[in-house]
Amino acid sequence: MTSTIRTAILLPFLMASVLFGQTNDQDLARALVRHALEDTAGYHLLRELTAHGHRLPGSPQAARAVEWAKQKMEALGLDNITLQECSVPHWERGNREAAYIIEGRAGHGLPLAVAALGTSVGTDPDGISAGVLEVRSFEELDKRRAEANGKIIFFNRPMDPGLITTFSAYGGAVDQRVQGAAKAAEAGGVAALVRSVTTKYDNVPHVGVMSYKAGVLKVPAAAIGLIDADRLSAALKENPDLRIHLSLSCRNYPDTTSHNIFGQITGSEYPDQIIVVGGHFDSWDTGAGAHDDGAGCIQALEVLTLFQRLGIRPKRTVRAVFFMNEEMGLSGADVYGKWSATTGEDHIAGIEADRGALTPRGFYVTASPERLQKIQSWLPCLQEACIDWVKKGGSGGDVARIHQPEALIGYVPDVQRYFDFHHSANDVFTAIHPREMELGSAAMAILVYMISEYGL
Amino acid sequence: MTSTIRTAILLPFLMASVLFGQTNDQDLARALVRHALEDTAGYHLLRELTAHGHRLPGSPQAARAVEWAKQKMEALGLDNITLQECSVPHWERGNREAAYIIEGRAGHGLPLAVAALGTSVGTDPDGISAGVLEVRSFEELDKRRAEANGKIIFFNRPMDPGLITTFSAYGGAVDQRVQGAAKAAEAGGVAALVRSVTTKYDNVPHVGVMSYKAGVLKVPAAAIGLIDADRLSAALKENPDLRIHLSLSCRNYPDTTSHNIFGQITGSEYPDQIIVVGGHFDSWDTGAGAHDDGAGCIQALEVLTLFQRLGIRPKRTVRAVFFMNEEMGLSGADVYGKWSATTGEDHIAGIEADRGALTPRGFYVTASPERLQKIQSWLPCLQEACIDWVKKGGSGGDVARIHQPEALIGYVPDVQRYFDFHHSANDVFTAIHPREMELGSAAMAILVYMISEYGL
Repeated sequence: MTSTIRTAILLPFLMASVLFGQTNDQDLARALVRHALEDTAGYHLLRELTAHGHRLPGSPQAARAVEWAKQKMEALGLDNITLQECSVPHWERGNREAAYIIEGRAGHGLPLAVAALGTSVGTDPDGISAGVLEVRSFEELDKRRAEANGKIIFFNRPMDPGLITTFSAYGGAVDQRVQGAAKAAEAGGVAALVRSVTTKYDNVPHVGVMSYKAGVLKVPAAAIGLIDADRLSAALKENPDLRIHLSLSCRNYPDTTSHNIFGQITGSEYPDQIIVVGGHFDSWDTGAGAHDDGAGCIQALEVLTLFQRLGIRPKRTVRAVFFMNEEMGLSGADVYGKWSATTGEDHIAGIEADRGALTPRGFYVTASPERLQKIQSWLPCLQEACIDWVKKGGSGGDVARIHQPEALIGYVPDVQRYFDFHHSANDVFTAIHPREMELGSAAMAILVYMISEYGL
Repeated sequence: MTSTIRTAILLPFLMASVLFGQTNDQDLARALVRHALEDTAGYHLLRELTAHGHRLPGSPQAARAVEWAKQKMEALGLDNITLQECSVPHWERGNREAAYIIEGRAGHGLPLAVAALGTSVGTDPDGISAGVLEVRSFEELDKRRAEANGKIIFFNRPMDPGLITTFSAYGGAVDQRVQGAAKAAEAGGVAALVRSVTTKYDNVPHVGVMSYKAGVLKVPAAAIGLIDADRLSAALKENPDLRIHLSLSCRNYPDTTSHNIFGQITGSEYPDQIIVVGGHFDSWDTGAGAHDDGAGCIQALEVLTLFQRLGIRPKRTVRAVFFMNEEMGLSGADVYGKWSATTGEDHIAGIEADRGALTPRGFYVTASPERLQKIQSWLPCLQEACIDWVKKGGSGGDVARIHQPEALIGYVPDVQRYFDFHHSANDVFTAIHPREMELGSAAMAILVYMISEYGL
């Protein structure tokens, strides 16, 4: 049916545009949406990408995925295809990752679902056996410092379920994951166990980066699934003296090299005015980085392929950038950002898709009031792809490092279920809904088209 | 954590309201949202409801669910709990439901996933074996009438994937399901096989009501899963003479009796001004009617329980109505509508939730421009529950029959995946996301609160 509808609807539209030399933006927006939803080409491309497995920075899987992306861009005939070298951490989870509540003799117990946090040191090969101090905050840990010595510190504060912006709830809990190990060590603890920062009540650990503090002992840190976090908390109420065993084989290696990848359609009138649309290509190793952020990269690429398929030649250069290593320090974004100051190009907009591939809601814009207003004036076109608003707000960590952009823009889909998947084994291709993902591609394609046509 | 946060946040708010005699609507909206998201009480109630199985009008399961609903309303201490008798069709699917492409000797073949459409007659016990005519529209059937005689007419036009409003795409395909059997019979066909009207590419048949035409032979009608519809279409291209076997044991029985159920919190200042908030309680028998429309009923009930839990006594009467038999003719809505003209009560608003339990987007309103504008002025409060807009549009089939309402309002969540579940075995409790459902309850609670406080 796809080809029938396209012939019936798109060709007359395009022919009319060509014949009469006039393009109605709203009709074009509708055509972009229809094309995306009918073909679901991006969805199928994401299936291919996620078949490589995860894309942890510095991993062989990530290297293979970079090569795949380059070949895809070449097959699409993009201009200026570039692999841009950047240094990335090299951390490996290894094969041993286990925890249990010790019962009876050593080696026996109730297993707990855990996963090491990114950049954590491992335990000794024999693991750690220790008592547990459960706290809800760093303040509580400070107060109970006397009880912390030699213990595994269990940070068990949930995301606040009462906030409608799950990103805010995430922001209110993620300190435990990032700083927990350092805080634990400062209090005399021997490891940090952190309640997974997720909205889904299951037993899947959600990982993410953690960091150590200079001059403070590096102790191992792991995430624990919500069901087991609650089970452990209940067990501690029964028996505050219980001990758990934690064994992690993760390890840091010397930094290695990876790459940003980009390709573009060069602008027909203003080739040096660059619109970047991108996501980050790396992912955590527990899932396949489908929502976070394979989808964002593929949606960025699909903006260009939609233009190709509809025969749109943008006036300004549209560049799809897959940034490497957002998750462990934004080193790819740093390299692109510094390079962008040296090229003589004018980066007029940086658009990032890194909030999942769910149904579009809006765009956050960081720009002058006049530019924000100009983008808001395009809302009737953007509504064709389910965009209900354009407002002031943050873009994304990668594009934020671009040199002197006129506008930074973050694509905002519905966020209610994003943290169900985020940084976990739940973030796989089957968690993607084709219509929801494609509407995101279309929303960005409309926005990019308007910027390329009218500037900012 | 729930109780901790509630103590920390809600009690001071409520105490402040009481102590200083002032209520800030926006704070109240925020408290309703927080309460809904923290407790997810409606979500757990829906789990209980759907454990009864389906709620096909006239079925023992529906009767048991009605009794369950009455007991729940009693346990909640609602006022004026009423079972309101209505006549409903009594149709049963029976145990025999099969189809296959005949290969080799009789009784052998490639099975096809089918399900009888609601109110369809069955086949003879031996089933029907016949050739197949595939068409995409009634117009095509008219043109190919000469080929139709003695055939099973296979209506295979998909929903248009290019529309962002899935309800519009549904509207553009559902004629095949509703009128297909009558059109088939008029053309000399012996049965109708209809491509499932769904957005999900799987092999689950999606059913729904069909209707016969006076004076036209009643032939059996069944839905076929999308994968098998495409397989059958491909097989027909290979061999236009292939025959299929279809056997359905479904049957119509004399109409029987069922009930609307309602209960209310009686208004403190204007008890005769009624705000109806409701959904339809019946469902199709292939799933458990979780999204369609168990969730809508439970969300309506949750508006009242949220008021109870926050100690809100509305000025106007808020009535939760579970309408019976929306799916096979709106007979419950008819009874409620006629009754509403006789009570001396003034129905100021009818709000229906029957578009699934996905994340809130907006409200459609049918009312005078002044009333629409008044509701739109409440948007800052509604945005606390992810409502982005209030605009002119349709409400829902049930509340539309209320006598002289001042406003009819339809709750509109995100609709991209609704038809993945609709009228099928996919519509079960596990297809519900607790946050998304609860935000819907909260959105309606805020709207109902504003109407009860300020009128229309």
